[in-house]
Amino acid sequence: MILIGQYDSPFVRRVGIALRLYEMPFEHKAWSTFGDAAKVRAYNPLGRVPILVLDDGTALLESAAIIDYLDSQVPADKVLMPPNEPERHLALRRASLACGLADKAVSMFYELRLHAEPSPTWIKRCQEQISGVLNALEVERAKDKLTYWFETDCGHADIAEVCALRFLSEAHPGMFEMTKYPALAKHATMLEALAVFKEISQPFIPPK
Amino acid sequence: MILIGQYDSPFVRRVGIALRLYEMPFEHKAWSTFGDAAKVRAYNPLGRVPILVLDDGTALLESAAIIDYLDSQVPADKVLMPPNEPERHLALRRASLACGLADKAVSMFYELRLHAEPSPTWIKRCQEQISGVLNALEVERAKDKLTYWFETDCGHADIAEVCALRFLSEAHPGMFEMTKYPALAKHATMLEALAVFKEISQPFIPPK
Repeated sequence: MILIGQYDSPFVRRVGIALRLYEMPFEHKAWSTFGDAAKVRAYNPLGRVPILVLDDGTALLESAAIIDYLDSQVPADKVLMPPNEPERHLALRRASLACGLADKAVSMFYELRLHAEPSPTWIKRCQEQISGVLNALEVERAKDKLTYWFETDCGHADIAEVCALRFLSEAHPGMFEMTKYPALAKHATMLEALAVFKEISQPFIPPK
Repeated sequence: MILIGQYDSPFVRRVGIALRLYEMPFEHKAWSTFGDAAKVRAYNPLGRVPILVLDDGTALLESAAIIDYLDSQVPADKVLMPPNEPERHLALRRASLACGLADKAVSMFYELRLHAEPSPTWIKRCQEQISGVLNALEVERAKDKLTYWFETDCGHADIAEVCALRFLSEAHPGMFEMTKYPALAKHATMLEALAVFKEISQPFIPPK
């Protein structure tokens, strides 16, 4: 399998970390969606990453769909997601919040980067959406007595959250004060210290 | 259950159609993400729709995660997605392409709506991404001998595709010439004629 995309993308990174935790061998092509646009589009007409190219050449797209496939390839007791309801939909809900936060951080980055006069309406909306998610996740995280959410091991929701927070802090340094979210910050620090999170990482490189 | 969001959103609509096909009763709150922002955010700090509020008050977010939950609530032979690989990841891939197209159509709508001077770089990029997906889906659709993709009944990938095409045509009338994509257009026309697609629909209302 080939994973296409740079690890400064929170979506590529969550897939890369899942592949490592599943001990699945893969080749990594750290292509940029702007600088390597033609190569990326040959696999995904959307020009987005992550892309997971299977051995038969099929290109899987979107981190959630890729993760759905990876989950199908490991024994049930190894899957990084609770297998049963209601735990499964609660984990997916938190992953959705984290990925939504990352979406808005990406959207705000391009809004600021591509316009001499960014839309104040859009920037304010993105900031409110992001701080709303940070508040919601902080409340849930602070209530939680487990080291990780839902499981004794790190799961997809934990990974998505940590990848989103890292991207937010690097793409928008200083815009959100993480001392207001101590439970989230503590959780992120703990996971970022793990070998797999250190290996599957890359400082944010703004597209040219 | 309560489904929050207007059916002019392709993401809300695909969930509404799945709920109907699964014969699951639900209340529909056609709230606007802009006009009813405070009500929406009380359920989802991201301020996005669809939101599916379960009877215990849990708010599920993002269409793919909501559909994952709905699929867990019906007998295996009723699920609108192939249960086994490789059919499952191929269906998810097509749904990802369709939802990605819809994402870019939404992004381009706000780019044009919110800026006196929209970014030519962004508009060109969105247009290339959308036409790239249309080309890819047209090729696959034209090759397919089935009435529907993968199954004799309409599945999540079919629904996502049709909802995305409808949104594209209404949010950006005339921008993409659907006569260039005859197999896709025929498929969309066939599904839009079904009672459930007629019922779960709403003409596009631009946010104020």
